[in-house]
Amino acid sequence: MSPMEKRDVFMRRAREQVKAALMSRDMLLLGVTRSIEDLDKVINLLGERLEEWYGIYFPEMRVEDKLKYAQAVLVFDRAQPDMKELAGILGQKKAEELMAQAGGTLGADLGEPDLEQCRSFANSIIGLHKLRERYEKYQDELAGQLCPNMSKVAGPGVAAKLVAHVGSLARLARLPSSTIQVLGAEKALFKHLKNRKIKPPKHGIIFQHPKISGSPKAVRGRIARALAAKITLAAKADAFTKRDISGMLLEGFEKRYNEIMAAYAAEKVKKE
Amino acid sequence: MSPMEKRDVFMRRAREQVKAALMSRDMLLLGVTRSIEDLDKVINLLGERLEEWYGIYFPEMRVEDKLKYAQAVLVFDRAQPDMKELAGILGQKKAEELMAQAGGTLGADLGEPDLEQCRSFANSIIGLHKLRERYEKYQDELAGQLCPNMSKVAGPGVAAKLVAHVGSLARLARLPSSTIQVLGAEKALFKHLKNRKIKPPKHGIIFQHPKISGSPKAVRGRIARALAAKITLAAKADAFTKRDISGMLLEGFEKRYNEIMAAYAAEKVKKE
Repeated sequence: MSPMEKRDVFMRRAREQVKAALMSRDMLLLGVTRSIEDLDKVINLLGERLEEWYGIYFPEMRVEDKLKYAQAVLVFDRAQPDMKELAGILGQKKAEELMAQAGGTLGADLGEPDLEQCRSFANSIIGLHKLRERYEKYQDELAGQLCPNMSKVAGPGVAAKLVAHVGSLARLARLPSSTIQVLGAEKALFKHLKNRKIKPPKHGIIFQHPKISGSPKAVRGRIARALAAKITLAAKADAFTKRDISGMLLEGFEKRYNEIMAAYAAEKVKKE
Repeated sequence: MSPMEKRDVFMRRAREQVKAALMSRDMLLLGVTRSIEDLDKVINLLGERLEEWYGIYFPEMRVEDKLKYAQAVLVFDRAQPDMKELAGILGQKKAEELMAQAGGTLGADLGEPDLEQCRSFANSIIGLHKLRERYEKYQDELAGQLCPNMSKVAGPGVAAKLVAHVGSLARLARLPSSTIQVLGAEKALFKHLKNRKIKPPKHGIIFQHPKISGSPKAVRGRIARALAAKITLAAKADAFTKRDISGMLLEGFEKRYNEIMAAYAAEKVKKE
């Protein structure tokens, strides 16, 4: 082969590799997972701005949930408040509370055009929320296709975040269980590695699994270790063998979880 | 008056003061100006995410303007590209360039459902852009009502940003011209105050005025000083006398601007 021919072969191969990398479903899962993260940031930022802006008109309104706040802005009218609609969003009790405050409000009397501008802001926040919900479904679908075992063991949301965090399923499947356990808690991990007096993190992204976040603090570390072990096996199956072993893994995790909880209950009785 | 009666009087007065503060148009101008700033941030963030996401399908597409990129995502189709629509957004030359690249693209072949998700992202970016445009008009209206002199001398956008930066028109009207000149360049100013070897900033927010940003670097400081002096007088008129003196101020600024430019031209001739 002449050097030029060789060059052509190499170039073609490189192009094919790039194309193959882009082809994989990982990339789509990455795209949507990061978009959801960005949407969360954006909704938060704009939600705070809305509270400041609408606060000119009705500073007494305090609603924890940013989506509900935006929805309430759309239906609320200080002059003729529609009790039924407001109660539908915030619940009867909170709606009554707001109605009582509306009479003696310190807020300014804004004209309809000014309120309209504010409502359009609320509307666009609600729109971003809808987009986020839609993407969450899409993320679950993609995770189910790309890593069915992981999706069943860890839940599609956690599975997608783990893959997005390291960049690809193939890379994730090569990590040890102890690393998967603390993925996403790098800051706390490096603090520990610099100063051994600070305890290492017990869980990173997988904390969002209800069996960990819903358990008492004392057992979360143990449950996280058990779950990470099963996720590691699931990731390997998804990346290499493509066999469905999720039933076995879930059963194993369930068993270990019950053991941990039983041991915890016994410890508690002993202490008392 | 009994202590209780006194208390009631004070409470009533305090409530009235709060209400008066919220009543002023300043607050609305602040709300919309900061919302525009937030929308800029958000559009930028989501625009970058879109480029990464859509890059899976068509990595060769490079468009500087984030709005145009989003619009192009909506109409572009690698299989049957609509040349006319694409040219309408990006111009004939750029559209042809993209068409040529589309044939040998390294991007992955995505199905319609996947592309649809991506397009909905582009769509929401375009929606935020429209909201931003609408708010800019509203901001100009409010600035025209609240500070008509400043709006005419500095332009409504710069006037609104100056008021939003210090929090109220009354506060702005009490600042000296030298402060108004560098409002928004606090970081550079404090660097200079810490280390006198670093030169002080010549302009802050008012740099956005076309007579400053459009002038040669050597004269921008002088023009900024002249403009800041006129804005200071305009702010005082808006806040206190409420008289329209914008004609006189604009004339004075125009005269000073021409003097500066003439002096600059003379200097340049001398050097050569």
